[in-house]
Amino acid sequence: MKVHFLDLVSYRKHGEPAKGINPPRLLLEAFLVLIALGACLLKLPFATVEPVTWMEAAFTATSAVTVTGLVVVDTGSQYTLLGQLVILALIQLGGLGLMTFAVLTALALGFKLGLQHQLVAQEAFNEISLQTARRASGSIALFALAAEAVGILLLALFFVPELGLWDGVYHAVFYAISAFNNAGFALSADSLSDYVSHPGITLSVTGLFIIGGLGYIVIMELMDKRRWSRLSVYVKVILLATLFLNLVATGAVLLFEFGNPATLGALDGFWDKLLAAWFQGVTPRTAGFNTLDIGALTTATSVMMLLLMFIGGAPNSTSSGIKISTFVIMLAATRSFLRGNLNVTFFRRSLSSETVLKALATATIGMAVVFVGVLSLSALVEDNFLDIAFEVVSAFGTVGLSRGTTGELGTAGQLVIMAVMLIGRLGPLTLGYTLTVRRKSRVRYAQTEFPVG
Amino acid sequence: MKVHFLDLVSYRKHGEPAKGINPPRLLLEAFLVLIALGACLLKLPFATVEPVTWMEAAFTATSAVTVTGLVVVDTGSQYTLLGQLVILALIQLGGLGLMTFAVLTALALGFKLGLQHQLVAQEAFNEISLQTARRASGSIALFALAAEAVGILLLALFFVPELGLWDGVYHAVFYAISAFNNAGFALSADSLSDYVSHPGITLSVTGLFIIGGLGYIVIMELMDKRRWSRLSVYVKVILLATLFLNLVATGAVLLFEFGNPATLGALDGFWDKLLAAWFQGVTPRTAGFNTLDIGALTTATSVMMLLLMFIGGAPNSTSSGIKISTFVIMLAATRSFLRGNLNVTFFRRSLSSETVLKALATATIGMAVVFVGVLSLSALVEDNFLDIAFEVVSAFGTVGLSRGTTGELGTAGQLVIMAVMLIGRLGPLTLGYTLTVRRKSRVRYAQTEFPVG
Ligand SMILES: [K+]
Ligand SMILES: [K+]
Repeated sequence: MKVHFLDLVSYRKHGEPAKGINPPRLLLEAFLVLIALGACLLKLPFATVEPVTWMEAAFTATSAVTVTGLVVVDTGSQYTLLGQLVILALIQLGGLGLMTFAVLTALALGFKLGLQHQLVAQEAFNEISLQTARRASGSIALFALAAEAVGILLLALFFVPELGLWDGVYHAVFYAISAFNNAGFALSADSLSDYVSHPGITLSVTGLFIIGGLGYIVIMELMDKRRWSRLSVYVKVILLATLFLNLVATGAVLLFEFGNPATLGALDGFWDKLLAAWFQGVTPRTAGFNTLDIGALTTATSVMMLLLMFIGGAPNSTSSGIKISTFVIMLAATRSFLRGNLNVTFFRRSLSSETVLKALATATIGMAVVFVGVLSLSALVEDNFLDIAFEVVSAFGTVGLSRGTTGELGTAGQLVIMAVMLIGRLGPLTLGYTLTVRRKSRVRYAQTEFPVG
Repeated sequence: MKVHFLDLVSYRKHGEPAKGINPPRLLLEAFLVLIALGACLLKLPFATVEPVTWMEAAFTATSAVTVTGLVVVDTGSQYTLLGQLVILALIQLGGLGLMTFAVLTALALGFKLGLQHQLVAQEAFNEISLQTARRASGSIALFALAAEAVGILLLALFFVPELGLWDGVYHAVFYAISAFNNAGFALSADSLSDYVSHPGITLSVTGLFIIGGLGYIVIMELMDKRRWSRLSVYVKVILLATLFLNLVATGAVLLFEFGNPATLGALDGFWDKLLAAWFQGVTPRTAGFNTLDIGALTTATSVMMLLLMFIGGAPNSTSSGIKISTFVIMLAATRSFLRGNLNVTFFRRSLSSETVLKALATATIGMAVVFVGVLSLSALVEDNFLDIAFEVVSAFGTVGLSRGTTGELGTAGQLVIMAVMLIGRLGPLTLGYTLTVRRKSRVRYAQTEFPVG
């Protein structure tokens, strides 16, 4: 049996109904089922210290499955160990599950993994066999478990001496899974603020979520090719953009928070400040942990974070947002146009106009979702505009950082944020495909002139 | 002698230096000279009641030349009649001058005006003769003066009975010129708030700035073709989008302000509320007058206005922003991609991929300018984030609405806003061309694959 990827698109192209499995709809349904199941489990008496409402259980389940980390109920104190394990399971299924789906889609659309041991035999465009899908999924799961195992070992080194064996190991497991999946769920209400000056824990956590946020394709190619010159253009661009964004973000936090007595100003010495700036600079692109008080950040830092949260990480990974590739293509297309060159190029390779249009569509839908979300919350919630905008963009990038609005959303506001988290995790294009009316004919029309700008 | 339009681009394409006049640079230089001249005139003793500082004079001149209307010194009470006439002259030169330049560029790039009496003989792409430029400029000036004359007559009908002959006529002249050029300068500190329930004045003013914001090309074609079916695709799209945005904006103001006691709630009766909602709904797309207290608007209305101010009006007009055409093309390109069709079409006509890329570049540079502006002001000015964002987007769209931040900018903040007004009025692409390194070779590279979204 064959799995037909992007059948929704091919349906439109050929004007005939798709046969077999329709992955985008399958994905949406799987997420809804997982959320419903998770909410039921979290509603059971043994999952909570004090009973939670259905709304609280559904919000928690959505936040976990979409690996966001926004919470209306404190994870560490309000959920029992069993409740926390349910949350961990939802995070792993949501984070790893979507990454697997996205990698399979990329393979089916013809993206070559560039591995010596090629996973995918030459198959038809837009489909891969179930056997190939199974092998690829196994390899992705192995990658995730290996990364998480290393993370658990590293974190246990630091947590066990402090918290004892059982509690230390449990913290290591919880934070390793939460970090690799870019979930941002924490066992304390103030996230990792206790460890703001602990290089071992903060660097382990950032390492884990950066690896998860680069995703399977990038990491596998890195392990396989080892030398810069042999990497594919895509992987080079993702690595350079990630490095650039992380350095700029760290610099911005240092610059805008250095004298803020509620954040970096409270820390002694340059190295402690640098460590905290690094952690809080790299965490907005989907991870969502914090070691500084987000509500106390300056407006300038918050504005910088709005952009970082909107961009997110690499495609086919545990991160969300419009994705680094979309952001980079928009900039490169602008540069190309200004140079009078209609080909968008990176490292002497050009992109297809379909890829450029895909980036344009992703960015446009992403902005539309954020705009509608901010407008709705502005009408529904009495709160500061910055805090509202921050909450919505955080939900869209499934980041989980908050300036304090999460607790004041009310039922309607919570439903808005749940919808934005789901759209953000499934991706702007999945929403787009769902809303588009199918079109059967493909007539070519004469060109018209159109002044712009 | 020939005027070579967009020589900057052709320079890049052919790799040889441009001959003759380079219009984008000419435009920037003309604006800078006008601003400097205006600042000197406004600094003269006879122009002001109390002397203004150089910074205040420069800010006023920039705001007038870019037809923005943000003010650090109250126009009606701080400038003398002569000072106000200087401001009016700067508005007319900046508004009409740029519209003329933009229409000439469109003609030189091959846009057909669609007039029976075609202004432009068949000339080479990217150039028009000085004779043609002179004839077209004359026609555009005639259009502007005719519209303003009608505006003055209409407004005098309402102002003269109230203010007496001299003052009434002066108000009519001032507001007609300010409205047609979408300048938003007013003779009272609270703009047109006194006339919130005056249908004659508010409808005349909105009529004038909508005509100015549609611009010469659209209005001439409307007068020439008269029937919908004979209009060009471009003009149809601009008219429909303008209508749609104005209706949505009016509805949004009604919805979000209906119960606000500081705005619509203070007005008696539905028709007064509707009139005020219409005025305040259509004014954010560049005009910038207000009859309601902008600082008292709800957050939801303000968010809606952020979008409207960013979009602006039609190209080749007295309005700014990324332009309606850019906005519409971004949405249409997204729809096309989702339908699996790579051609972007309107009314059975397709756009060139160059036009789509131009819209992408315009929107991207516009967002970058707004982002950098908001980030800078956030670091420089102690004010509410909403008010800061509103101020920057208002400057970018040369709108002139303010939630009160203009008075608190300080010198550095004023310089940021002056730069944003200038970039907004000259257009994002003009900034882009200025910053781009020229490129001489046009090699075609092999395609590469690139996961997105
Ligand atoms: K997260
Ligand atoms: K204006």
